[in-house]
Amino acid sequence: MRDAFHEALDGLNDDLVEMTRLVGSAMGRASQALLDADLELAESVIAADEAVDKLHHDLEARAVELLARQQPVATDLRIVVTTLRMSAELERMGDLARHVAKVARLRYPDSAVPPQARGTILEMSQVAERIVVKCGSVVASKDVEAALQLERDDDEMDRLHRLLFRHLLDGSWDQGMECAIDLTLIGRYYERYADHAVTVAGRVVYLVTGEYPATNGLAQGA
Amino acid sequence: MRDAFHEALDGLNDDLVEMTRLVGSAMGRASQALLDADLELAESVIAADEAVDKLHHDLEARAVELLARQQPVATDLRIVVTTLRMSAELERMGDLARHVAKVARLRYPDSAVPPQARGTILEMSQVAERIVVKCGSVVASKDVEAALQLERDDDEMDRLHRLLFRHLLDGSWDQGMECAIDLTLIGRYYERYADHAVTVAGRVVYLVTGEYPATNGLAQGA
Repeated sequence: MRDAFHEALDGLNDDLVEMTRLVGSAMGRASQALLDADLELAESVIAADEAVDKLHHDLEARAVELLARQQPVATDLRIVVTTLRMSAELERMGDLARHVAKVARLRYPDSAVPPQARGTILEMSQVAERIVVKCGSVVASKDVEAALQLERDDDEMDRLHRLLFRHLLDGSWDQGMECAIDLTLIGRYYERYADHAVTVAGRVVYLVTGEYPATNGLAQGA
Repeated sequence: MRDAFHEALDGLNDDLVEMTRLVGSAMGRASQALLDADLELAESVIAADEAVDKLHHDLEARAVELLARQQPVATDLRIVVTTLRMSAELERMGDLARHVAKVARLRYPDSAVPPQARGTILEMSQVAERIVVKCGSVVASKDVEAALQLERDDDEMDRLHRLLFRHLLDGSWDQGMECAIDLTLIGRYYERYADHAVTVAGRVVYLVTGEYPATNGLAQGA
């Protein structure tokens, strides 16, 4: 049986997993709203971000309370501090999903995504979905091997991000500047979303091994 | 006289102020590198970001050590946890300065900023410089009134950001798509840089008053 402190830690971890579920759902629905020009869905994503923010704040408050009451040291302290950081990353992922939904809302009844970029944006949304699901599994399982695999999805996201720019730059672009600006920002939102998921997984690796993965930038301070 | 714990807290706060100085200098030099197509300066900004990351990590390590050794509660605990958050925001501001420098490097020997956008980018860089200097003063002084004033600079940054898009959209754009993508991303970097500075100042307000400023988004979980 676990003591009260470790039960509280488990509770915080469950909330982190729940946050991955919420921000995963948010980005999935934001992507659909974007691709289908679905105003109602976009509005629902924008409104739902409040629940992510609330969970983030609750989690922070409980983590700080745990620090104050239990005064953990060593590994336990490291877990609480790292939980605070992961919660902040996940909250930001929720913001990025909201940003995507806002572009969808702004361009309604048109879609912000022209036909020649649909395939790439669809793939980016699928990578985002995959990476956040894996991120949730890693937070739940603390599986270091699985955590390191997120890098591959992030590489795929970077490849798609470069491909998106190629659509804009290959000389056949006929959709005007406003649409190009939208796609540039949307691409950035997906890329940052994946970066944050990789960072969260990297923090799990740090908790388990005491070291950040060398390749994901956390070792250099991401 | 202050006790050892509060002296250590003062030391952490001094380092936060030093971080504002470093990321202010970085964005100032990145802006100059961008506007003057100065490759050497751009490289120096990119290289110097390591020092910001190092200071961030040192600061984090000392903050966690302080939690472990001194086990602060109440206000003291809140200060340490908030310091961790502010350090993360400032580290991110350093990344954004590096991103601006990277665009300058990518387009060298050309400037990424065409004549019609120079004035706006110059103004954005000046607002960035002003806001980070104010941010440093606020972190040093804990002056709540001064902290709230950063919102005005952030409003100015948002205005300039919208103006930048107008350059791209007013129908007279003749600089091609690559340059438009660069400006879209550069504009986003400056805007995010200012957002982070406002968030840091908002955290100072929270430390002093126990509440986040209503208008800057922290109250809703930024």
